[in-house]
Formats: sequence, structure tokens, C-alpha cells
Amino acid sequence: MRLAVPLVRAVSTSALGSAAASLKVGDALRSDRRRFTEGDVAAYAALSGDRNPVHLDDAVARGAGGFSRGRVVHGILAASLFPALIASRFPGAVYASQSLRFAAPVHVGDEAVAEVKALNIKTSGGRHIVKFSTKCFTIGGDEDDDEEGTLAIDVEAMAFLPTLQLSSQGIAD
Amino acid sequence: MRLAVPLVRAVSTSALGSAAASLKVGDALRSDRRRFTEGDVAAYAALSGDRNPVHLDDAVARGAGGFSRGRVVHGILAASLFPALIASRFPGAVYASQSLRFAAPVHVGDEAVAEVKALNIKTSGGRHIVKFSTKCFTIGGDEDDDEEGTLAIDVEAMAFLPTLQLSSQGIAD
Repeated sequence: MRLAVPLVRAVSTSALGSAAASLKVGDALRSDRRRFTEGDVAAYAALSGDRNPVHLDDAVARGAGGFSRGRVVHGILAASLFPALIASRFPGAVYASQSLRFAAPVHVGDEAVAEVKALNIKTSGGRHIVKFSTKCFTIGGDEDDDEEGTLAIDVEAMAFLPTLQLSSQGIAD
Repeated sequence: MRLAVPLVRAVSTSALGSAAASLKVGDALRSDRRRFTEGDVAAYAALSGDRNPVHLDDAVARGAGGFSRGRVVHGILAASLFPALIASRFPGAVYASQSLRFAAPVHVGDEAVAEVKALNIKTSGGRHIVKFSTKCFTIGGDEDDDEEGTLAIDVEAMAFLPTLQLSSQGIAD
């Protein structure tokens, strides 16, 4: 796999201050709940140029889209929770890959949470790259109002984490 | 693979008007050039909550991030070109999956183009699902100023296309 940046070089994290954080295989990070509003979807449609009517028009979402609850959040917008969560703990993180399976829709107005879990950690040339499982759940809504939520998006990401400090007693919090 | 919507049901495309378009294996779609500005990145950071300094702070991008040209566009924002392109030709498209490999950075201010190509088309229960290769190229910049561009993001997407009309003479344009 070609990677975005060279594997061997000096890493400066000075601009990141005291951002170093630890992580070990099996550790999970969970985001705050995020509600994706009509305004968010409109802003994203304008920014991305993706004006697919399944995101903007309830009739199309219910008809051609097959979404009985109407308009759905752009999948890529909902997936933005993953790098946001990883970078919130590891500022300076550089994404190498992300795979996404859209298992169920996130409807406009739904709340969602993201959870990522470290599956493996590799070190090469002084740089740490972590493979995370990535899951996004919707909370509440007509079809599901339990706390567990419905799996909306899953699969995994790989990211270089320049502020990761490995430790045998590494604790995610 | 669990899919976002049931496979067998009546599909209404009436709200999409005369949006039907044809496609056959091997056909490619190419987006217009898109420049990702500092304002775009700031708007996306606010919308997504992803304030990773590799996108906002040249010192971090050059140091910890290893990007000699400074700040980079959020990978997920650049990847939004793919569903935007697919939906521009096939409104009502529903994404089933997307895999992304970030092969090279898209820097703030760079122009990018997306290209998707139909790898296969399957039909089940009256619905068409297409696997596309997805490639995003940067145009110009310090490291590359030829017309061909540098591959920044690749891999593939699968999408249901309710407005796809199959035809033995299917022509992408």
C-alpha cells in the first residue's frame, strides 16, 4: 500500500503541545452524541455539491430511495464522525484509509454516536499506525428508541498517530 | 452484506422526473475541477467538528503531519466528490459502501477532479446496484503541474441507482 507520507523521517510534535495520549489494542473511543439537523445537511450539500434529492426531498427519499422515514443524512457526512473522534484524542492524526459500509440510514434529525476501537498498532520508522474498527450508531428515532442504538455505518480506518505514546500500561483515558 | 434498504419493493422514480440515465460496465464519469479553499476547510471543520490541526495549522501539518506543503484538506471532504459525482448523473442514488485509500494529500488550495468507472452492474428485485472504481486526482500544485494529476484517493464504491436504465447500447453521455 502506498502511503500518504514517507515512513522514515523526524517527527515534530512541538506544535501539538501536551497532546500526547496513550492507546493499546482493544481500547475504544466513543464520541458525544451528534444530532444531524436539516441545516447540517443543507450546509454539507452546499459545501460538497452533493444535492442528491435523497438528502433534500422527502418524496424522493421515500420513493426511489426506499427510506420510509424520509430524507437521510449524506453517508460521508455521518462518517466524518470517525476522523473527528480520532483527531479529538490524537491531534495531528493522518488518515491512511477508511472503509465504510452503510448498513442503515441516518435520517435527518437523528442523533448518532461514533465508536472506534484499536484493532492493532504497528510501528515503523518511529511512526505509529493504528487500525481502528469504526462504528456509527443512530440513537432513538421511530424504529429504535433504546439506548443501544442501530448500527448505521461500520468497517475500519487506518491512521498515523504522531501523538500516540505507547505504554505497557497504556490506558485510553 | 446487509444493505441499507430492502432488495425487493416497488420503486417510484416519479419525483425524479426525467432523470433516467444509462450506464454500462466500463463507462466512466468525470467531475468538474473543484478547488478546495481555506474557507471550505474551515466550513467543513465547523460542520464535522473535525478540528484536527493538520487541516488548520501549517506548522502541525508540516511537522507532525509530514506534509511539506502545509495544511491538507480533510480526506473525507475530498472524498465527497465521489457520491456528488454519482448523484449528479443518477439522482436518488443510495450509497451501500465506499472504501477510501488516501494515497497522497489534497492540500488546501489544490484543485481536484473525481473519476468513477462502472466495474459491474447487478440487478436484484428490480433494483440496480453498481460497483464503481473511485479515483480523485489533484491538478497542479508545487509537486505536480501536469494535466494528468496525482492520484490522491482511490478504491471503490457501491451504490443503488434507481434512475439507471440498462441498455445494450447504453452510453454514458
